[in-house]
This record gives sequence, C-alpha cells and structure tokens, in this order.
Amino acid sequence: MTNTMQRVVLAARPEGAPKDSDFRLEEAPVPTPGDGEFLCRTIYLSLDPYMRGRMDDKKSYAKPVAIGGVMEGGTVSEVIASNHGDFQVGDIVEARTGWQTHAISNGAGMRKINAAVAPISTALGVLGMPGMTAYAGMRNIGQPKAGETVVVAAASGAVGAVVGQIAKIHGCRAVGVAGSDDKCAYVTDTLGFDACVNHNDPDLRRLLKEACPDGIDVYFENVAGKVLEAVIPLLNPFSRVPVCGLIAQYNATGLGDGKNMLPVLMRQTLTNRVLWRGFIVSDFWDQFPDFEIAMGEWIKTGQVTFKEDRVAGLANAPRAFQGLLRGENFGKLVVEVGDDPTA
Amino acid sequence: MTNTMQRVVLAARPEGAPKDSDFRLEEAPVPTPGDGEFLCRTIYLSLDPYMRGRMDDKKSYAKPVAIGGVMEGGTVSEVIASNHGDFQVGDIVEARTGWQTHAISNGAGMRKINAAVAPISTALGVLGMPGMTAYAGMRNIGQPKAGETVVVAAASGAVGAVVGQIAKIHGCRAVGVAGSDDKCAYVTDTLGFDACVNHNDPDLRRLLKEACPDGIDVYFENVAGKVLEAVIPLLNPFSRVPVCGLIAQYNATGLGDGKNMLPVLMRQTLTNRVLWRGFIVSDFWDQFPDFEIAMGEWIKTGQVTFKEDRVAGLANAPRAFQGLLRGENFGKLVVEVGDDPTA
Repeated sequence: MTNTMQRVVLAARPEGAPKDSDFRLEEAPVPTPGDGEFLCRTIYLSLDPYMRGRMDDKKSYAKPVAIGGVMEGGTVSEVIASNHGDFQVGDIVEARTGWQTHAISNGAGMRKINAAVAPISTALGVLGMPGMTAYAGMRNIGQPKAGETVVVAAASGAVGAVVGQIAKIHGCRAVGVAGSDDKCAYVTDTLGFDACVNHNDPDLRRLLKEACPDGIDVYFENVAGKVLEAVIPLLNPFSRVPVCGLIAQYNATGLGDGKNMLPVLMRQTLTNRVLWRGFIVSDFWDQFPDFEIAMGEWIKTGQVTFKEDRVAGLANAPRAFQGLLRGENFGKLVVEVGDDPTA
Repeated sequence: MTNTMQRVVLAARPEGAPKDSDFRLEEAPVPTPGDGEFLCRTIYLSLDPYMRGRMDDKKSYAKPVAIGGVMEGGTVSEVIASNHGDFQVGDIVEARTGWQTHAISNGAGMRKINAAVAPISTALGVLGMPGMTAYAGMRNIGQPKAGETVVVAAASGAVGAVVGQIAKIHGCRAVGVAGSDDKCAYVTDTLGFDACVNHNDPDLRRLLKEACPDGIDVYFENVAGKVLEAVIPLLNPFSRVPVCGLIAQYNATGLGDGKNMLPVLMRQTLTNRVLWRGFIVSDFWDQFPDFEIAMGEWIKTGQVTFKEDRVAGLANAPRAFQGLLRGENFGKLVVEVGDDPTA
C-alpha cells in the first residue's frame, strides 16, 4: 500500500463541452480511517453523462461539485483498512467515492457486492445505477405492453442497452438509435433489438419512421436534440416518454437552434394524450431490491447482455469523459483505477 | 313550429384565424323523425375553443368537419316530436347536434337535463363538458394537494374558472392568468382566486413569478404560447401539467416564433421531474357521474360559481366564435338559438 493517492478535481466550470483544463489531477497523502470509518481503494470508476450537470452551478436536482472538489462518481472499491464493525478488509463495495484512488467512508450509502453473481464492475452498469435507471423508467413510466414499439437513443450505452432488452422481455418491438453503423450492428445483432438507426444519417427522420411502422408507444428519452425532434411526430395515442437524460444538450450554452419546437410538442401531447415525466433514478431507490432480483435473473438466462468500454488509469478519466459526451464510448464506460482481485 | 330551419356549415378551411367567409348560414326544411327517432330544437349552442381543431383536416383526436358540413357543437335542446320510447316531447336534453336550429336524433349520446338542479344552459358549462374537463384534469393529472400553487390561464373562461375554484376547494393557492384587468378583477373578486395576472402586461413573467412566490405545483394548460413560456421556469419539483388545450396556437399556420424552447422545457422536465400529460375530456367519461355529484354540491354550497357570456341568434355564432379565439368573451360563451321554456 502506497502512501500517496491520486484524485481528479474540478479545476474550472466548463463553458460548453468540458476540456482538459477543466480538470486537475492531484496527489495527496492517503488518509487514515477514524473510529467507525474504513479506508477503501478504488478498483473501478464509473463515468456517466449526469456528471456533466454536476460541473455547472445551475439549479438542478443535485448540488454541483465545488471548484477544487473531487469529481463525483460511483465506484467499485475494496476495503483495505477498517475500524467499522460492518465492513471488513477485503469486502468489495459499491460506493460513491468519486474520481480518486482512495477514500474514507463511514459506510453511508455503501452496498456490498457479491463477486459470485457477476463480474464486480457490473455494479456500475447493468446491475447498478444505469441498469436500475432503465428498469425504473420502464416499470414506472414507460410501462411497455406486448406488441408496442419502444424507442431508445444511445442504444449501445449503459442505460439504452438495458431499456431495449427490457422492451424485448415485455414482447415489444425495440428500436434503437446510435451513433455509428458498428454500434447499430451491435444493438441489433448482439442486444437483439429489432432495428437500430444511425443518428448521424441525414435521413434520420425517414429511417426512424421506417423502423417504426406502427409509430412509437414508449420513447425512453436520454438524449434529446435531433433524435427527440424525429420522435415527436411518430408518438402514438397514449404514448409515454420517461425523461431520464438529455445528453445532446448538456453542453449547450444557450437555447436551442432552429425553429421553436415547443408548439409542435404541445400539439402532439394534446392530440395524442402523450405522457412525459422526468425522473431521477433515486426517486425509485425503494425498488432496488426488486431490480436486483429481476436483473440477476435476466443476466442468468441471457435475456440481458452487456458490454463495457474500459479505460486504464484514473489520469485518463477526464479524456474518456469528454469522449462520452461526444458519444465516443461503445458500451458502459468504466475506468480501471486499481487491480481487480476477483478478476 | 316553422317548416324552415337554419344551420351554419363550414364553407372553407381557415388559414390561420377563421373569418366570416369560412362559415355559411343555410336554410333547409325541418326534417321529420323516423321510427326510433325524435326531432329537437336547439335552445342553447355552446361555443368552445376545441371547435377550431375540427375546422382543419390535420390528423387529430377527432375527425374534421367536412366542407359543407354542419359545424359541430354541444347544445341544450328540447324534444318537439318523438317516435322514440325514451324521449318525450318537452324533454330537455344535452346533445351534440351542432350549429343548427333543429336536428334529428336516435338518442345516442343524449343526456336528459333536470331543470330543477340549475339553469339548463349550465349543461354546456359548469355542469357540462367544460366543467367536466376541469374536474377530470385536476382529479387524474393535476392532483392538487393543500398548500400547493395551481396556475391556470383563460382563468375567467369556462374551464379555467372551474380549475381555480377546484384548486381552492383543495386548499391550494389559485393563480389565474386572463386577458384584461376586468377579467382579472372578476377572477379574484368573484371566483375567489388568490391572484390573477393580465397576460397582456409586458411584465407577464415577473408578475407571474410574484404571484407564485413558492413556485408552481400544478399548471393546467389550456392556452400555451407566452403563458406557457412564463410558467416553465417556475415549475416546482414533481409538478404536474394537465395539457387540455392550446388556444394560443390553434390558429398558428407554422411553427412557433422565437427561440427554440424545447431544450428549456426538457431540462426543466428532467431536473424537476415534471409530469406532462395530454388529455381529452372523453378519456374520462366514466367519471361523469362522480363529477355531476361533486359539482352539483359545489354549486349548491357556492364553492363554485360561474358566468355566462350570451350571444343572441345562431347567425351570430361565427362572429362570436372568432372572438372566442381572440379571448373576447367574458365567461362561458353560449349562443341563444331558441326560446328557453324554463327561463
């Protein structure tokens, strides 16, 4: 065990897309746990689009990261020293200890991971927050019924991949939108979606319409932008739109370009009695035990598969995160921060 | 009983705001009821914003009126000849017989009105479709809780007036938006709203914010346009928006002016977990008996009051309807088509 730890702090609030200089890699002494505390070392760090919101100080559902503060994030970590009765050295935990190699915890919000169920990194993906986000949005808002059409963007990403696979489990037609032909091929061939449309195709509207010959009953919104604008005219009567993320506009510094789409959205909402509902995964934390049981079963039967995009080294997290916001990752983005003793 | 009837037909589909030449007043022989049918004469015709949608042939939740067809509309009518076992001469019915003095019916969709409960014209207003629209939107989507703030535009209109009064019954702060100082005074002084803002004031955004010091928990949407744009930034966490009408954009021939407000709406929806849901009153017809009981009681106790704006003569319906779309009516707009035997 080294005596020096590393952490990535927020150096400056980004204007538009984050750049290297908005982050700073720092070193510090590894802290010592006090009474009722334990020290853990990070094995995997999750990178997720919501982190972009934490870098701004706009009013939102969560507090921003302070300038000079450690970037927030979920991790899979190992307990390496403990003065806490419930956590022993060697325990693997899912934690929210952020972009750093080591952290002290009193156990609040920690969840022990059973490495026998699935690879421990899945606690950041299909068996963690992104998987739960897909599950909660579909269960509580999307409410897919057999024969309906479900559309999700970022379909090869951590949330979108699960949304489409849940749609298939419910007997729906699953249509993805993704950012490259390779991703589209993965979405249909490996994940089992019925169709996937490349959002970089200038014919996005026509292609999406062709992929949804019976219209759209559920649109799981995690992207916004041009995908949303292509979806709106296709929404069916009594369709549902869980609004979970807006990655295409996270870096926006002003209002949208182009014509004002608000009247079009409102007309469609009224005419087709569309339901839109924003949600945050934590609104439904009480359903996490249900999720763990269902998802564990789906993984076991192969009804849900997953893909990780691994990046080596904490120092590379800022670059990888910038790429995530541009859609450059392919699968759940995970940073390998320290050795995985279960691998 | 005269042998000639009058009717107003759709002469042309309007481009933008309807004009006189889009309507045509016709005469025709009064028809004779066949077996199982009856003849009724119109006493009151209701004029409502939704009728604008029926004049277009855009895809919507209801079929358009055909060119040359009688304009659709709800009426209170009297049975004046009957070959139908359930409807007797002298019965007063709520009907959907449209903009005409006489009509044949087989009874489908007819509802007998008890003149002892309230003036029969209220079957077109507070005890009819507009009242039911307010009731259903608040019960199923708005779900107001004591202490919350409810905002409704067209607050002196047939639906808005009831929305605000239901909000007060639930212990909410009721804030109206209306188109003149006279209407605002009526909304606060007679209807008992806590505040009302004139949407023609250039300071609409600031005034609305001041009228809603704790933000907005329910926005009953029946107007859209600039009122909606002023509401969006004030929506509270877990707020609800029943989308019931969009009168400000019914005459629109293209997309909205100004900046694209869609990203702002989506961000607010996500950040504050806002629920938007379009609805049509007929989605909730099964709740009509509940509505009749509740509203009858509220009228009896004075918790709900109402105001009618009367226009004399079917020939004046087109002009009155054009004024309705400009917000010129003051109260529920009703056309006096024939003598009211109960008045």
